[in-house]
Amino acid sequence: MILAMKHGYDTEDLIAALATPWGESALAVIRTSGTGSIEKIASIFKGNKDLTSLPGYSLAYGMLMDGNTAVDQVVLGIYRAPKSYTGEDMVELYCHGSLPGIEAVMELLYKTGFRAAQPGEFTLRSFLNGKVDLTKAEAVNELILSKSRQAQGLALDRLSGSIYDAIDRAKHLLADILAAVEIQLDYAEDEADPAAGFDMDKLDKAADMLSRLAATYQVGKLYKEGIRIALAGRTNAGKSKLFNLFLKEDRSIVSDIKGTTRDYIESSVAVKGIPAVLIDTAGLRESSDPVEAEGIRRSNMVIENADIILYLVDASEGLSDEDKAFIKDHPCIPLWNKTDICTRPAPDGFVPISAVTGAGFAELEELIFAKAMGNRKVDMAEAVIDSQRQKELIDRSLDAIGKVKIGMAAEMPLDVVAVDLEEAVNALGELTGEITSADILENMFSRFCVGK
Amino acid sequence: MILAMKHGYDTEDLIAALATPWGESALAVIRTSGTGSIEKIASIFKGNKDLTSLPGYSLAYGMLMDGNTAVDQVVLGIYRAPKSYTGEDMVELYCHGSLPGIEAVMELLYKTGFRAAQPGEFTLRSFLNGKVDLTKAEAVNELILSKSRQAQGLALDRLSGSIYDAIDRAKHLLADILAAVEIQLDYAEDEADPAAGFDMDKLDKAADMLSRLAATYQVGKLYKEGIRIALAGRTNAGKSKLFNLFLKEDRSIVSDIKGTTRDYIESSVAVKGIPAVLIDTAGLRESSDPVEAEGIRRSNMVIENADIILYLVDASEGLSDEDKAFIKDHPCIPLWNKTDICTRPAPDGFVPISAVTGAGFAELEELIFAKAMGNRKVDMAEAVIDSQRQKELIDRSLDAIGKVKIGMAAEMPLDVVAVDLEEAVNALGELTGEITSADILENMFSRFCVGK
Repeated sequence: MILAMKHGYDTEDLIAALATPWGESALAVIRTSGTGSIEKIASIFKGNKDLTSLPGYSLAYGMLMDGNTAVDQVVLGIYRAPKSYTGEDMVELYCHGSLPGIEAVMELLYKTGFRAAQPGEFTLRSFLNGKVDLTKAEAVNELILSKSRQAQGLALDRLSGSIYDAIDRAKHLLADILAAVEIQLDYAEDEADPAAGFDMDKLDKAADMLSRLAATYQVGKLYKEGIRIALAGRTNAGKSKLFNLFLKEDRSIVSDIKGTTRDYIESSVAVKGIPAVLIDTAGLRESSDPVEAEGIRRSNMVIENADIILYLVDASEGLSDEDKAFIKDHPCIPLWNKTDICTRPAPDGFVPISAVTGAGFAELEELIFAKAMGNRKVDMAEAVIDSQRQKELIDRSLDAIGKVKIGMAAEMPLDVVAVDLEEAVNALGELTGEITSADILENMFSRFCVGK
Repeated sequence: MILAMKHGYDTEDLIAALATPWGESALAVIRTSGTGSIEKIASIFKGNKDLTSLPGYSLAYGMLMDGNTAVDQVVLGIYRAPKSYTGEDMVELYCHGSLPGIEAVMELLYKTGFRAAQPGEFTLRSFLNGKVDLTKAEAVNELILSKSRQAQGLALDRLSGSIYDAIDRAKHLLADILAAVEIQLDYAEDEADPAAGFDMDKLDKAADMLSRLAATYQVGKLYKEGIRIALAGRTNAGKSKLFNLFLKEDRSIVSDIKGTTRDYIESSVAVKGIPAVLIDTAGLRESSDPVEAEGIRRSNMVIENADIILYLVDASEGLSDEDKAFIKDHPCIPLWNKTDICTRPAPDGFVPISAVTGAGFAELEELIFAKAMGNRKVDMAEAVIDSQRQKELIDRSLDAIGKVKIGMAAEMPLDVVAVDLEEAVNALGELTGEITSADILENMFSRFCVGK
């Protein structure tokens, strides 16, 4: 609590935040939390039920009132400590999704004694109140910001405790060894062989678990951050057709949902679960920019910043010198397009494809996936981390385990080895948040959404 | 029910829609409705409670499952018919505001037997199930789309029944007269004086109530649609400073809420409750457009389309020929700006102002308000309509009442008068939806938000 207060969070305050995006819509949710929040909201609510006597996990319908003035017709969700997201009393307000209406409700709440919640403050309270450890807290934000179905699934696993469980198992193994070492230090000062009671198997097992988890970071990062794919090639090679094919094959239902706009030259898709930003360099040149040279400069920049370049050649026109020069100068996946209208065989290293019929597209996706993955291995059934903080702490624990092994091999005194063992355990404690500091919390939660 | 089916709505279906804006955020709400919706959701939910035995107005926490795969951690709001928004069984899903997560949940719902709800379909069901009349149904959408606090307040009044009550009172008066007339027609065929039993006071009272309501339409429309204000004047006259002053004085808390962006050259503000789009023509010229002539063309277009033009003159520079020409050619409010640094008195008809200190701004707002209102009278305590449909039906009723009066004055046979009386009553019945047609419903609800 003191840690949080020092950094501008006061966990005794009543807090409120809009938890849904700012925009006209059917509903908006305003979230509040804090001891006494139910009573405060009851004082501005006129409904058919008395909020203060309602049990947790119930809904109430009525009007929010500012004195005699009606502010909005709402449904309220009542949660009672400790059975709530934050572990405190909470009221969620399901309001009309009207912009001036949301403003009016927020203003009324501020007047009633709530203050605007800081980013991540609800989840911070959840952590401080022991509802989640830090890996689950981080997973909340990772889930919200996830860019593909697979990334969302991985974050949901972490939210359900996959990382916490793995870390906890490793930590218990290390703590067991440490306990045995400490007993030996306390009671067996004259023992000839310090390694006698030392369970090296357990240490190896813990190291193995942590190594496997650390190894998932590169994959986790890939699913989190995604890749940039540039479509290049001469005019009429079929770049825009392929662009549209990617959108279609993504099978995303996004476009069914109101308010989505698709930028013609850049779009977010997922390639076998890896989030990708797809850029059609043709779109850049065809933009409203009056100076063609500027368009070409922007195309080149996109190509240089891309993780993967798809270079399209029109099979019916064949390879030009320009094509050859590009392919020679750039690490790209060359595509032999228009196989639907031209049977000329693809040159070596080219992927035959038809952006019109979709022939060859599945193979292309495989190739992009393989290229993006590189040497990374992935076992999606296991916990996958995408947090740099977690990766660094696992590495710190592994380093300390390495020192323990060296110490044991060199027959160092047990009390020296015990220091490294303790460090290995502590790094994992910091990871889950058993050991923490205000700086860590501040740094982590300030990157959250408001309302979470 | 048949009406709705004919027009693509099937009220027997299970429907689902995202009710919050499409965007990354703490929470997203997906709304479902239909007989059996609770059981359907129960089949994809793993929580600590059995949904099928939960009473209405309760919440449940758990995981949405697609077979053995977790899809999202959610809280569910359970509503049981008829105590729900639609009057049907409903489940609201409070999900993480993750874009792939929302997609995953929607896809799971479609797989489970829900279909995508059409715009306004939840409110249509609410009307068909007798939960709201048409004036309240329209108010839902007016509330969501309201552009100022005052407009939101007026819509909330209508949602609470202000229009319905006024119409209902007028209709009862007319129905009373009609009933008396019908009795006379049935039992008093040989009566010498048909006007004997006719309550002209009641008719006048009804006409008066309806006339007052109809008169509010111009004001309602103003609050609904707002005005366009252009800021014009020579370079350095202070247009951008005044633009920023409008934003500041709006006291809107919008800017506190994440995700709002302010366009430099155009912004939505409210002037004494009237929604206004404010356009800084300087911003147009200073845009990235390379051809200055194009900027000037766009400025002129903005000025011509504006409802109100604020023309700024730099008092310290005095009136130039250019200024005089503009003011002569355009109906505008001329402003004598920079009174903070220049004491030269304002010419006749000019509003002295300082865009820096805000001096004179309150007077300017009064002037804009008066100009926007024109001859319209407003009594915000009364019901105010902003629906063209409602206005037309009130006018139809008033026309019929006029014919009744003429008929009575001309001593026409009572059965002729009765036809007009009936028409006056029916127009009001159509207004509230007691009498309705599929076309009216289709036309009205298709303009709603999805999820409402």
